Amino acid sequence: MTTTATTLKGQPLDKPVLDAMLRRRMFYTPSFEIYGGVGGLYDYGPPGCSLQANIVDLWRKHFVLEEDMLEVDCTVLTPHEVLKTSGHVDKFADWMCKDPKNGEILRADHFVEAILEARLNGDKEARGQQVVEKDDPKKKKKKAKSEAVKLDDALVKEYEEVLARIDNYDGPQLGELIKKYDLKNPATGVLPSDPVAFNLMFQTSIGPSSNLPGYLRPETAQGQFLNFAKLLEYNQGGMPFASASIGKSYRNEISPRAGLLRVREFLMAEIEHFVDPQGGKKHERFQDVAHVELVLLDRDTQLSGKTNTRKLTVGQAVKEGLVDNETLGYFLARIHLFLERIGVDLSKMRFRQHMANEMAHYACDCWDAELLTSSGWVECVGCADRSAYDLSVHAKKTGAPLVVRERLEEPLVIEEWQVDIEKKKFGPLFKKDAKTVETALLATSQEEREKLAKQLSDSGKISLEVAGVGDGKVEVGSDTLKVEFRKRVENTREFTPNVIEPSFGIGRILYSLIEHNFWTRGSDGGDEARGVLSFPPTVAPTKVLIVPLSSNAQFRPHIKKLSQQLRSMGISNRIDDSSASIGKRYSRNDELGTPLGITVDFQTLQDGSVTLRDRDSTTQVRAEESKIIDAIKALVGGSKNWEKVASELPKFEGQEVEIASR
Amino acid sequence: MTTTATTLKGQPLDKPVLDAMLRRRMFYTPSFEIYGGVGGLYDYGPPGCSLQANIVDLWRKHFVLEEDMLEVDCTVLTPHEVLKTSGHVDKFADWMCKDPKNGEILRADHFVEAILEARLNGDKEARGQQVVEKDDPKKKKKKAKSEAVKLDDALVKEYEEVLARIDNYDGPQLGELIKKYDLKNPATGVLPSDPVAFNLMFQTSIGPSSNLPGYLRPETAQGQFLNFAKLLEYNQGGMPFASASIGKSYRNEISPRAGLLRVREFLMAEIEHFVDPQGGKKHERFQDVAHVELVLLDRDTQLSGKTNTRKLTVGQAVKEGLVDNETLGYFLARIHLFLERIGVDLSKMRFRQHMANEMAHYACDCWDAELLTSSGWVECVGCADRSAYDLSVHAKKTGAPLVVRERLEEPLVIEEWQVDIEKKKFGPLFKKDAKTVETALLATSQEEREKLAKQLSDSGKISLEVAGVGDGKVEVGSDTLKVEFRKRVENTREFTPNVIEPSFGIGRILYSLIEHNFWTRGSDGGDEARGVLSFPPTVAPTKVLIVPLSSNAQFRPHIKKLSQQLRSMGISNRIDDSSASIGKRYSRNDELGTPLGITVDFQTLQDGSVTLRDRDSTTQVRAEESKIIDAIKALVGGSKNWEKVASELPKFEGQEVEIASR
Repeated sequence: MTTTATTLKGQPLDKPVLDAMLRRRMFYTPSFEIYGGVGGLYDYGPPGCSLQANIVDLWRKHFVLEEDMLEVDCTVLTPHEVLKTSGHVDKFADWMCKDPKNGEILRADHFVEAILEARLNGDKEARGQQVVEKDDPKKKKKKAKSEAVKLDDALVKEYEEVLARIDNYDGPQLGELIKKYDLKNPATGVLPSDPVAFNLMFQTSIGPSSNLPGYLRPETAQGQFLNFAKLLEYNQGGMPFASASIGKSYRNEISPRAGLLRVREFLMAEIEHFVDPQGGKKHERFQDVAHVELVLLDRDTQLSGKTNTRKLTVGQAVKEGLVDNETLGYFLARIHLFLERIGVDLSKMRFRQHMANEMAHYACDCWDAELLTSSGWVECVGCADRSAYDLSVHAKKTGAPLVVRERLEEPLVIEEWQVDIEKKKFGPLFKKDAKTVETALLATSQEEREKLAKQLSDSGKISLEVAGVGDGKVEVGSDTLKVEFRKRVENTREFTPNVIEPSFGIGRILYSLIEHNFWTRGSDGGDEARGVLSFPPTVAPTKVLIVPLSSNAQFRPHIKKLSQQLRSMGISNRIDDSSASIGKRYSRNDELGTPLGITVDFQTLQDGSVTLRDRDSTTQVRAEESKIIDAIKALVGGSKNWEKVASELPKFEGQEVEIASR
Repeated sequence: MTTTATTLKGQPLDKPVLDAMLRRRMFYTPSFEIYGGVGGLYDYGPPGCSLQANIVDLWRKHFVLEEDMLEVDCTVLTPHEVLKTSGHVDKFADWMCKDPKNGEILRADHFVEAILEARLNGDKEARGQQVVEKDDPKKKKKKAKSEAVKLDDALVKEYEEVLARIDNYDGPQLGELIKKYDLKNPATGVLPSDPVAFNLMFQTSIGPSSNLPGYLRPETAQGQFLNFAKLLEYNQGGMPFASASIGKSYRNEISPRAGLLRVREFLMAEIEHFVDPQGGKKHERFQDVAHVELVLLDRDTQLSGKTNTRKLTVGQAVKEGLVDNETLGYFLARIHLFLERIGVDLSKMRFRQHMANEMAHYACDCWDAELLTSSGWVECVGCADRSAYDLSVHAKKTGAPLVVRERLEEPLVIEEWQVDIEKKKFGPLFKKDAKTVETALLATSQEEREKLAKQLSDSGKISLEVAGVGDGKVEVGSDTLKVEFRKRVENTREFTPNVIEPSFGIGRILYSLIEHNFWTRGSDGGDEARGVLSFPPTVAPTKVLIVPLSSNAQFRPHIKKLSQQLRSMGISNRIDDSSASIGKRYSRNDELGTPLGITVDFQTLQDGSVTLRDRDSTTQVRAEESKIIDAIKALVGGSKNWEKVASELPKFEGQEVEIASR
């Protein structure tokens, strides 16, 4: 079994080494560990928390501020009715089985997938072929151990076909597969129970009388939709516009995975861009990003069983129809630029289009930004076209006008078949059914109305099918009903906007970013390899480490002054005046991803100069404090890189050697 | 009935006018309003969300960055066992009654308080006295309507005594008061049911098999305590240190109040400062804040039934023992400075000490920073001394060493009575009870041991009471037990840190800040008063409004350039190119609290100059773009105030007059 994951420098990624480092440096840690822990819940320690805050801060600048999005902060607690209407109560579920022997809960699709893959791997072993880990775009299942057993060629083909379609099966079908292929739980040797639907939302009840059932939101989107009318008014009626939200969401995963990739509580950042569905969903600023090159894996390619990607500009992709429209394309490009900006390795990034049966119940098209990690390709950002689904269902349920009314520059003259009902006669005629019959009449299409008009003129009455009224058919005479072809003038146009939704899983991005920036360097002296996290300065948890050469009290005023000066410029820094050697203190901060290090030594006391060290190259320069501060400002602000700084300031070589020899 | 609430300019605060403005400008809005709303849940619209983000950002700078606190982000979902141990499952409850007629749920203490106050007010009316709204520090109850009925003098005194002690009654006592005084629910005219305890935590279950009951955390503190050992290690063993956390917490209030002051989901920012209980809880940086003047309302003053505050420096307050120790005093001062920095009106702020029976179950002392609003004094920041309560209970429950081990500079030689057990004989002697008896022996005090030693030497055996073993008494002979006065050397000291916890309710601070900065100005033309929110630039949702004089297309490039330039400097701005008059557009932004406004007009096209308007004085200056940008930078950064800018740049008077005359 080989793994394709590599570090920033192309070294094979040693996951246990990385995990141990992240734990040692408290990037994140299992929640409630002293109580035994709870699956799928993690706490962020100081560096993880800071990394997260920096990513969120950049997200806000890149999206919200750059495009004047309307940021809102809605509640996590959501009453039942809202999520019933949105479809989540009925459809936001996974299929789960139970092992009757040990009570283990299994996610049905992952279970089938894992066992069949193990059998295929066992077949390959038996045939003496190399077992290569599959390039699995979602990579969610628990691995099952394979045994070297050769399978019939026909069965191999069957298994492969099942795996290719694994996302398409519903619960009963998964249950049939389990029986057909005798898929026993390796832990107990028995068949699991038939799959049942398990809703992924956490349930609670709001208020003291327990009479208002509610859930923890599974996405931040619904709060934005429910506020649509107010946001449109706040935006003074202007369209298109986007709302945005950063906050926690919750999914009660059946089998959360170790690590940050499938958790039960997670931070999301979501944008809901509301756009007029007419006119092809153009975007005003599309030309600004048309040149951005994306790596795309479209639906048709996947349907043909391949994973070949194409690299092309988003301008070209929209032109070819590979990406449906400018607005969707615009956001794919903006997502690409954001991920690049925070330090994602672009060679480990692709946009994959969802298959038709893989999409959430509300989406009509969706592209995921996926990042390659040691767990395969991980979906980190979804960019879905939710069409008018959500606004329509909430408007229908509540009667709230979640629409845009646009004054037409020129009034629209429409010639069409119109239905007039003589209410005074109509009411007494149908009594309690009057409303139902009226609705049915008004719901008729232009074609149907033309036919009704003909019936009326031919026979003086019409006959219409209305379910639930009498025997399902009603008759209306021409004294009560008129159907005429007439002109109608419209001064306003009313429409329900469509929604393009870029949705970011911050935890997944954060974890992938760590892997993409991780590498190890061997020490010259042959020590064990030391970990480095080469975060760009903008997202690095701490920007500058300040170390005194020793615990000599004379260094303290310099250290304190430097720290305060940097802080007043908004540059986060930490002092490490512990008794460890300078080398060790630098190593610790390489593991924390701190890009720069200042050393205050005896020469500082003489001439006020300090050294500045670059984390990635470990090279150092030496200059007076003010010059070093200026260099740091330029490096953190992004106006200069290390090469530039190193070319401008005198190189310093003494110290690190000195330290190594101690 | 008079209300004491005033605006920033001392005008009587017209709450309905303010509420309408906040609603119109979408600072916040009831959640799920199109579904009828849910009590105690609010969404923040764009300006509220931005105001909140700015307050949080300043909080992080003022506390976390300034003092190198270890920020963590822990989960909201918390398993039952953790909150059982912390005491929240048993003690985090309010007493509630039910109206048997209409099913209304009433919070028992608020109900009793409201009815008695109404009766006292009715009595005052009947006596022809003015009814002044009581200065109620917590102001939580729903008001009951008063009827002018005169009461016996003795009864008035009784009611007043009950009200003074209202926080001291438990459920059964509240039930007795309801019966004794015949407190009927005004809505139905019947007595409510006996009070029952209602736990305020939202319950849910974690995982698919519903076997792990859990809650939404009622505070962020527990996650910080559970991570104590890891944080101490991250801090390389250094003490004291503080952790901090910003996140949502949840309390299922029985009767949430309209507005942001008592809600069910809220943002908290909490600091847990871990300090050695030995040595009087000194604080290294106390001298930096000793001069800060605080307004204090201590426990003894309240016990005597008064609300007189004292203004004195925190240095003096600690010296006098009014504030228990330096660390507590340090944080009171830092809280004061923070609230001042974000723009709280210092004349509407005080620190009130909790009464003994008012404190949370974990606290041994607590001071609240209270802000005066139209709802009376509102607790916005709590600063509690939680002693070693939380770390101790979690350590005891889990066995995790939530302690600090300190190497002693000089080994400690202790002479004391020591107990030695001969295990080989002791075990067989007591069999299954051996552990219990041993624990009882080791738990003896020095005094008891001295007596035991005497017994041993006198009679060759001791007799000890051990509950649950045999008949509750055991005998041990001198062959099995020795008790001797000996020297012992300790090289390390182990202690459980005490915790000082400043805990900020961001929503309450945000709302109070709005009231403190609100005022109205009448227009010269006699229009209705226009609202202004005079936020300091640092917290203002938007810093600069950019308006073109008209929709003339020639203005657009200037507007765009200005906006981008400000954005690149991190200064948030909004363009308003709507067709409303400039006066209207400025008014709208006065309501949003935008401190500065740039106008681009025809003169801009000629000489590149623009005008800059100050929200509070409505005066304007005019200069070329680059100078105006520099002025904005200085104003937003806080290095200059408007008076300074106005004295440096040419005054501009034309426009606003021009506009007013349109």
